[in-house]
Amino acid sequence: MKMKYELLKQEKNTKARYGKIHTNYGTYETPMFMPVGTKATVKSLTPEELKEMNCGIILANTYHLWLRPGSEIVKKAGGLHAFMHYNGPILTDSGGFQVFSLAKNKEKDIEEEGVHFKSHIDGNSLFLTAEKSIQIQNDLDSDIAMSFDECPPASASYAYLKNSVERTLRWAERGKQVHNNPNQALFGIVQGGAYEDLRKYSAVETVKMDFDGYSIGGVANDGESKEDMYKAIDYSIPYLPEDKARYLMGIGDPIDLIEGVIRGVDIFDCVLPTRIARHGQAFTKNGKINFHNAKYKEDFTPLEEDCDCYTCKNYTKAYLRHLITTDEMLGGRLLSIHNIRFLVRMMEQMRNAIKEDRILEYREEFLEKYQSKK
Amino acid sequence: MKMKYELLKQEKNTKARYGKIHTNYGTYETPMFMPVGTKATVKSLTPEELKEMNCGIILANTYHLWLRPGSEIVKKAGGLHAFMHYNGPILTDSGGFQVFSLAKNKEKDIEEEGVHFKSHIDGNSLFLTAEKSIQIQNDLDSDIAMSFDECPPASASYAYLKNSVERTLRWAERGKQVHNNPNQALFGIVQGGAYEDLRKYSAVETVKMDFDGYSIGGVANDGESKEDMYKAIDYSIPYLPEDKARYLMGIGDPIDLIEGVIRGVDIFDCVLPTRIARHGQAFTKNGKINFHNAKYKEDFTPLEEDCDCYTCKNYTKAYLRHLITTDEMLGGRLLSIHNIRFLVRMMEQMRNAIKEDRILEYREEFLEKYQSKK
Repeated sequence: MKMKYELLKQEKNTKARYGKIHTNYGTYETPMFMPVGTKATVKSLTPEELKEMNCGIILANTYHLWLRPGSEIVKKAGGLHAFMHYNGPILTDSGGFQVFSLAKNKEKDIEEEGVHFKSHIDGNSLFLTAEKSIQIQNDLDSDIAMSFDECPPASASYAYLKNSVERTLRWAERGKQVHNNPNQALFGIVQGGAYEDLRKYSAVETVKMDFDGYSIGGVANDGESKEDMYKAIDYSIPYLPEDKARYLMGIGDPIDLIEGVIRGVDIFDCVLPTRIARHGQAFTKNGKINFHNAKYKEDFTPLEEDCDCYTCKNYTKAYLRHLITTDEMLGGRLLSIHNIRFLVRMMEQMRNAIKEDRILEYREEFLEKYQSKK
Repeated sequence: MKMKYELLKQEKNTKARYGKIHTNYGTYETPMFMPVGTKATVKSLTPEELKEMNCGIILANTYHLWLRPGSEIVKKAGGLHAFMHYNGPILTDSGGFQVFSLAKNKEKDIEEEGVHFKSHIDGNSLFLTAEKSIQIQNDLDSDIAMSFDECPPASASYAYLKNSVERTLRWAERGKQVHNNPNQALFGIVQGGAYEDLRKYSAVETVKMDFDGYSIGGVANDGESKEDMYKAIDYSIPYLPEDKARYLMGIGDPIDLIEGVIRGVDIFDCVLPTRIARHGQAFTKNGKINFHNAKYKEDFTPLEEDCDCYTCKNYTKAYLRHLITTDEMLGGRLLSIHNIRFLVRMMEQMRNAIKEDRILEYREEFLEKYQSKK
């Protein structure tokens, strides 16, 4: 069976919506946040820990897994779920974003057929096409696959973006033709930068191809402004069908999650919670905190008093600071648990707020504390 | 209450013995292996995971905790157990070994009062004495503390060792005078290199001071041969009382564990299982294996078929190799779980063998497989 989205409640005052995603690995509520398991592992954590945090879908990266261990090995293992021992739904990206952001020396050669670039690991020449991306994802056997798209930089001109959107549409069509995994949904990706007409065109034409869901891409580039990201969502959402899931790619800042939900997004992903954890930072409802700060040296209270995560239930700030400042692996692990749970809890709270038509009040209350810098 | 050792069974054919250690955090069987939590964390693992592996006592390092976060902070946290959220017994070393092995540029100035040396972290001048070591350990509030001792290099001359043994005896006496924690046992340490008369002298004189248990030290130095280590044990054990625990410091190679048990040792510790894990190596009953080896690329069997650890029950060698070769934190964590469990299981098996007077058969069976290099 392919993953299916079910719209259950449209919030009264905004575009926010509550729904469910039915998969072969269970049913999960939306809006939801997906932790990122780039190389088939959400850094430092086990699948059991993710389940305990009430995570639903997780994301794995096609580009990284194509290079190592190679999609044929994952296929032989019985697919990604068996390979990484994750008994929940998995979404794979197309590799497009990584090709454009990670390619060695950022050198790449884009042609109609696909993209030539060099591996960020060993500099080997690689060639990724729309068909190849889909074939790799078919082999990985994720529950949701992404169409191969071009991700132009934030600085790209209108003329460049227009051409790029056209090419991404042709790549989407080609990918759809070769897609061949009856248990895997395939999403189309809307591009077009912060231009209203390009986003509309991209959305309308992508929807014509009738994908199983739709992503909004090109919003997580370096140098992308928040305003441009919000525009990208606002210009895309009106043209996406109500009965399909909408996924905003690569976004996970708490404020952006709220803004995305209010604009009608169902799914988010981001490396932020695990990346900042490894650098000693943690989300709290009063803003981000940094454990390198000496003020936590003798702070024997939990990271967040009312958080239900394993870290907050069992450890003090003083101990977390000790682990972080002495570079102990457990530090990044415990902060990753808290940070992911923080975002997942936000989504739980937003789902409740949507059901009660008070998502705008939720935003106000959240921002008041989060930006207070106590 | 102070930790107490109870001898329950003397093996018939060797000096091996089965016993129990009663502590304020439960009763644990011996012989046992203690995982090392240098900086109040067994690298990458949680206390719950250690309990699941059936670990008993764990070790924490006085020198490291003295420097960071500082023993006064651990004391304010309510002691090591509260600070690191470990609800089981903890043993602290004296700091002596680290002063002699980690001091910056190995420069140190030993005088009767104590040792002047420079911090391996920031080069600051430090001075550790017998009294200071005990006071720090009192503050850390471990269940078992060690006397401050000198750890001369394996190359030290007989004359040097003789003086050193005398000084270690004086330090032990001074430490005992200031020891002041009614819930903490204090062990004396036998030194004397591989010299029979020095080990005997050190053991007899240390036992005269009536400590709560006895350690055999000076056996984990760089350049120490296995023969010298076995001699150090053989020359010390006959002079140690039967009703007190015997702890061989810093030893954790599987073969050495067996040899130590047969010679009458009750407690062992070593960083080996977690250190080799981070380098991609794992213990198996057929010898150590290295996950950088390409032969595991498509090996979809568990690390060890009959191992009951979390790693072996849930992951394949191919996935473990993928994590190790891509430098993923979960790799070191999963191998640490297996390696610690491997040694803890060995101890379980040896306790059974002692009860059945077949420890020599156990050694034979173990070595036959372990050294087979299949």
